[in-house]
Amino acid sequence: PSAPARSHSIAVLPGDGIGPEVVAEAVKVLDAVTRPAGVTLEKTSYPLGAEHWLETGEVLNEDTMERLRSHDAILFGAVGAAPNDKRIPSGILERDLLLKLRFGFDHYINLRPAVLYPGATSPLSDPGEIDFVVVREGTEGLYAGNGGTLRTGTEHEIATEVSVNTAHGVRRLVRYAFDLANSRTRKRLTLVHKHNVLVNAGRLYQRTVDELGEQYPDVTVDYMHIDAATIFMTTDPARFDVIVTDNLFGDILTDQAGAVTGGIGLAPSGNINADRIAPSMFEPVHGSAPDIAGTGTAQPTAAILAGAMMLQHLGHPDLAEQVNAAVRADLEANGSAQRSTSQVGDDVVAQLGARSV
Amino acid sequence: PSAPARSHSIAVLPGDGIGPEVVAEAVKVLDAVTRPAGVTLEKTSYPLGAEHWLETGEVLNEDTMERLRSHDAILFGAVGAAPNDKRIPSGILERDLLLKLRFGFDHYINLRPAVLYPGATSPLSDPGEIDFVVVREGTEGLYAGNGGTLRTGTEHEIATEVSVNTAHGVRRLVRYAFDLANSRTRKRLTLVHKHNVLVNAGRLYQRTVDELGEQYPDVTVDYMHIDAATIFMTTDPARFDVIVTDNLFGDILTDQAGAVTGGIGLAPSGNINADRIAPSMFEPVHGSAPDIAGTGTAQPTAAILAGAMMLQHLGHPDLAEQVNAAVRADLEANGSAQRSTSQVGDDVVAQLGARSV
Ligand SMILES: CC(C)[C@H](C(=O)O)[C@@H](O)C(=O)O
Ligand SMILES: CC(C)[C@H](C(=O)O)[C@@H](O)C(=O)O
Repeated sequence: PSAPARSHSIAVLPGDGIGPEVVAEAVKVLDAVTRPAGVTLEKTSYPLGAEHWLETGEVLNEDTMERLRSHDAILFGAVGAAPNDKRIPSGILERDLLLKLRFGFDHYINLRPAVLYPGATSPLSDPGEIDFVVVREGTEGLYAGNGGTLRTGTEHEIATEVSVNTAHGVRRLVRYAFDLANSRTRKRLTLVHKHNVLVNAGRLYQRTVDELGEQYPDVTVDYMHIDAATIFMTTDPARFDVIVTDNLFGDILTDQAGAVTGGIGLAPSGNINADRIAPSMFEPVHGSAPDIAGTGTAQPTAAILAGAMMLQHLGHPDLAEQVNAAVRADLEANGSAQRSTSQVGDDVVAQLGARSV
Repeated sequence: PSAPARSHSIAVLPGDGIGPEVVAEAVKVLDAVTRPAGVTLEKTSYPLGAEHWLETGEVLNEDTMERLRSHDAILFGAVGAAPNDKRIPSGILERDLLLKLRFGFDHYINLRPAVLYPGATSPLSDPGEIDFVVVREGTEGLYAGNGGTLRTGTEHEIATEVSVNTAHGVRRLVRYAFDLANSRTRKRLTLVHKHNVLVNAGRLYQRTVDELGEQYPDVTVDYMHIDAATIFMTTDPARFDVIVTDNLFGDILTDQAGAVTGGIGLAPSGNINADRIAPSMFEPVHGSAPDIAGTGTAQPTAAILAGAMMLQHLGHPDLAEQVNAAVRADLEANGSAQRSTSQVGDDVVAQLGARSV
């Protein structure tokens, strides 16, 4: 393998609400860790989101989509208008921006680590040592946008949503999850589905796990229904190592995982095209939180950790590990303190400096 | 309204695993509370489940279905074979028994109270006073059994699952939820869905809540995405009063709710045909737990509380309240003790006696 590139072109999409605030801190930390290493991140900002939609009536046009495609990676904040802002149709930004990027760039791996950091406070009284990764499918399932309505708006309306699952999509997902599990200490893979009710999709997932599992004799595999998984996520989240699941179950489980590990403000994610034929995208799991936007109180740690995932993806695991270690040290030192958004960024940068001396 | 009947014909379906063990305790408590009140429960037991399937190759035939229909209510334990029992195809008992009953008897209200009882131990360090009810849809959504596979078993397989939602089904559900919310102290109704992604079904739910809401000026309505709901269920479950949601989201949320209120062994449910054109069915939320079956350690409280829900439905709110109070007193006195299944039943009966003196 060739040496990692020293310069990367990054598209930055701060988005709405607290998005720009947390992305600013991620960029601050990324600059602080890359510069001393001689790695350059050339950043281009794209002002997409609610404001852009209100001004132009466009969410994300094909031209911008092609410009985004030319970057090495995308750093994403959050989109979504305030729920009571009636000027913006519900879900349009989520679907035509966030999901359009995930589908358009074939981000079939939605990677969501869940770690209970020292210094972070879990709402569970006995959380144990939580350190797992959810490998969520990103390009099919109920997110496919299939379905419709008949006799719309009448008392005879029928509304359908179709979960579309393909052997191709499930196989590349499960393959990735096995490789990940195999690379970890505990080597444990849990398939989460609901195959007693969703028999068609469930069988496809189970069969794929069974088949690929034969190639990973060191990985221990188990299965859990999604409803049971929410119980274990409450009573024993430390039991999980790698979870592989579909798009919607992954969405639900990772928010719950964010909550049990001390807050969704600490949970990063990567939307990854593992074939690298389009840029991958890194974002906090949390949303735009319009209610606290502008108050300077948003927690930027998830965005900073998303930046670390981006460095990893770009071929700089050492720099990623420096950021992770700095965040860990920062949370240990200041996790329980009330801090402004920019203070957290500064503190993480200070930890980077302290550790590199 | 006429006086409630003094005699009721009850179908008892103990089912598999711990089902028979917990149902025995529910029956013990039901007998103890009804006899002194001069109410008679005529019970007919139906030995359906894994054993029956292995012996006869039938899960639930039409003839039995018609016999069940003639009862006033059904008390259900749990079905489901051990996951490693390869003799029984995955999910067949769940679908052809439990779901067949829910769909066949049009149990469109799946009512699932979640209460943190004094004496019960929540895994949350600061759970607050949890007392809410999930009104889960029971006869449509992703449970409709729609969907299929194409190029089955090949690398080009496509597997679909169709969520079917009707104005009729959503309206009667939401109507019930509003009536329930209106009858409670806090009068708060939360719609849980994912209408930013599942736009067709989501709009139908939201529109129905908006429309019916106008008839309930005293009920405060809010909305939460299912992923956010799992966060609040972790950080502030006491905020919920009545939740209305679809079949799958309700399945997921109520298992999580069971976990945060101290264990799924305390969570009862009612599968209700509110038009009373078919018998309603009452069951614990938990499953058959084959791993602990026969050990005498299963927690029968959920089944006992399901019995109380049945008494309520049969027109005996006073007797239902007696059982609820006895369970509450029992948990307060013995909640943290290690007790056998039958001991718990005896203790609840003793509380009934103590309270009626
Ligand atoms: C905003 C929304 C469309 C998105 C999703 O459902 O995937 C979000 O909840 C997430 O988890 O990234
Ligand atoms: C056993 C299964 C089919 C059932 C469901 O999914 O509804 C169970 O989980 C429940 O919640 O009653």
